Amino acid sequence: MNRKKIEPDVRLLESDLMALTTDFLLSHGLNVPQAHSLARILVAAQRDGSWSHGLQRLPGTLDTMSHPRFNKQADPAPESVSAAAVRIDAQYGFSCLAAERGIEALVEKTKQIGIGLLAVKNGFHSTALWPLIERIAEAGLVGLSMNPTHAWVAPAGGTKGLLGTNPLAFAWPRKDKPPYVFDFATSAASRADIAMHRNCGEEIPDNWGVNAQGERTTDPAEVLAGAMLPFGGHKGSAIATLIELMAGPLIGDRTSRLSQDFDQGANAAPCHGELLLAFSPDIIGGADASDDAEAVFAGFSDQGARLPGDRRYRMREVSAREGIAVSSALLDRIRSLVR
Amino acid sequence: MNRKKIEPDVRLLESDLMALTTDFLLSHGLNVPQAHSLARILVAAQRDGSWSHGLQRLPGTLDTMSHPRFNKQADPAPESVSAAAVRIDAQYGFSCLAAERGIEALVEKTKQIGIGLLAVKNGFHSTALWPLIERIAEAGLVGLSMNPTHAWVAPAGGTKGLLGTNPLAFAWPRKDKPPYVFDFATSAASRADIAMHRNCGEEIPDNWGVNAQGERTTDPAEVLAGAMLPFGGHKGSAIATLIELMAGPLIGDRTSRLSQDFDQGANAAPCHGELLLAFSPDIIGGADASDDAEAVFAGFSDQGARLPGDRRYRMREVSAREGIAVSSALLDRIRSLVR
Repeated sequence: MNRKKIEPDVRLLESDLMALTTDFLLSHGLNVPQAHSLARILVAAQRDGSWSHGLQRLPGTLDTMSHPRFNKQADPAPESVSAAAVRIDAQYGFSCLAAERGIEALVEKTKQIGIGLLAVKNGFHSTALWPLIERIAEAGLVGLSMNPTHAWVAPAGGTKGLLGTNPLAFAWPRKDKPPYVFDFATSAASRADIAMHRNCGEEIPDNWGVNAQGERTTDPAEVLAGAMLPFGGHKGSAIATLIELMAGPLIGDRTSRLSQDFDQGANAAPCHGELLLAFSPDIIGGADASDDAEAVFAGFSDQGARLPGDRRYRMREVSAREGIAVSSALLDRIRSLVR
Repeated sequence: MNRKKIEPDVRLLESDLMALTTDFLLSHGLNVPQAHSLARILVAAQRDGSWSHGLQRLPGTLDTMSHPRFNKQADPAPESVSAAAVRIDAQYGFSCLAAERGIEALVEKTKQIGIGLLAVKNGFHSTALWPLIERIAEAGLVGLSMNPTHAWVAPAGGTKGLLGTNPLAFAWPRKDKPPYVFDFATSAASRADIAMHRNCGEEIPDNWGVNAQGERTTDPAEVLAGAMLPFGGHKGSAIATLIELMAGPLIGDRTSRLSQDFDQGANAAPCHGELLLAFSPDIIGGADASDDAEAVFAGFSDQGARLPGDRRYRMREVSAREGIAVSSALLDRIRSLVR
């Protein structure tokens, strides 16, 4: 990926991008529910101005769908584990369809007993977390989502890949406003960002990763061949480890290392589990949750601090008004790959 | 607090420290269950080599117990909210007794349905989180614990105190080994550490906080009068905000700002809620949790990276063998304050 190739220069209607993305996926044999689910997430990311998690991911889905274990006909259904827990097996298809279907069951349980857990298993995962976690907040609930990836990240004090880039997303519902949502990798930078620096011939900050000898380097190619570093030193490393354990062994799915082994050189999206949690402020806390939370958010704007998600919501407004910005070179490439 | 005054120079039996700490608290009118609970936590912190969270906290409990709302006779009892959630009101006593009693109910629910939530409300909180979260792991469960404090920390991009130092603790059970446990403030440094630098006339790194004008400074006194900063830039700030919302409004208790208002100059320990979560790997994930998690931990030692908690466990072994290290000056001060 090169920054120029995905920088947007035209605007399209959301419905046209949905049609193109769905056509692309269906033409490669993906079943209808998976194609619609993945298209929704990729177009939502593009709409919100995340070029790295938007349509740029589409050509790479061909590698993922070529993985010997990939299941183009996956049609997952949630299974109740207990009054609080739901499990859904993505059946080696894209994990977003399983997550989407599981979230409905998760919301139902959480509205009954105040807290719920959703374990999504065996999904090829290549999407941003915020488009789906927003749905939990739209149901009036607090949501948390996390997953391992591949063992690209060294723990603090280490020199070799062990942990995933392990993203964490959080959503808090707000009245008459889009939810407070953050979604980020617990690595210092995303792997896509490091690759983009390499492709543009740019140096990276020296706290993003180490070379194969375990020494810090500003050369992105060396970091991609060596190991990435977690954000925030030993504290960020501990949080990445929490995600590794909670969205891996806790739900009986692959760690980042096992997910990488499973890839066997296919260069597919990582295949692993995802953990989602939901909480009902109404049941757990009672009346005051909303006002007190709004006072925290007001404390950000009072001092000119940006709330995570603000940029996404601004981009979303512009997209609704003017169409979704996308790179014409990328569109050409996608069109040429429709079978 | 001055570093010299708490640096240990003698070793005492655990039973003698427990007796002294309990005597101190009882002599100031605290009821027996609170005195025993708080003594256990403070002595455990001292045993594990955390001078900042050990007996050094004892003289300050006098300020806390002098708060007009402090309840020396608090005798909290857990209340079931749902099949998954427990609430316990600390009744304006020290929160550790409520947390201790609530954890028993939390473990019971989690062993039934795989996940549980404990909301501890209205507790004066001055202790480390790890001694209690270890109990969740000792029951074979995964534990998470978090709480707001006072509005000392500016969000990333901000200049004024809004968020608490908001500690986060996590425990993962291990077979035949002490659990994997981390416990840290989501501020770049702890308030106690900044105060210690001031008292020793030392500078601090320039990413620990800002002065009253919102500018970064290496002067600890200026940071204490200004605002602390979160660890890890905007990602750490987002996690501190998650804790502010989850252990505040979600459970219907005070944000860090409301907790600070509640203090009204008493200089008591912050009074607020605490959120604990527990998860059963057996119920949620099935068989392989333990082996896969051990492979992650082995990945740390293979590359010489330190697991969080290792130092604490080493200190604990030495304490068991040779007695608990403590400062004789601190002991003298405590003895002089027994009524």
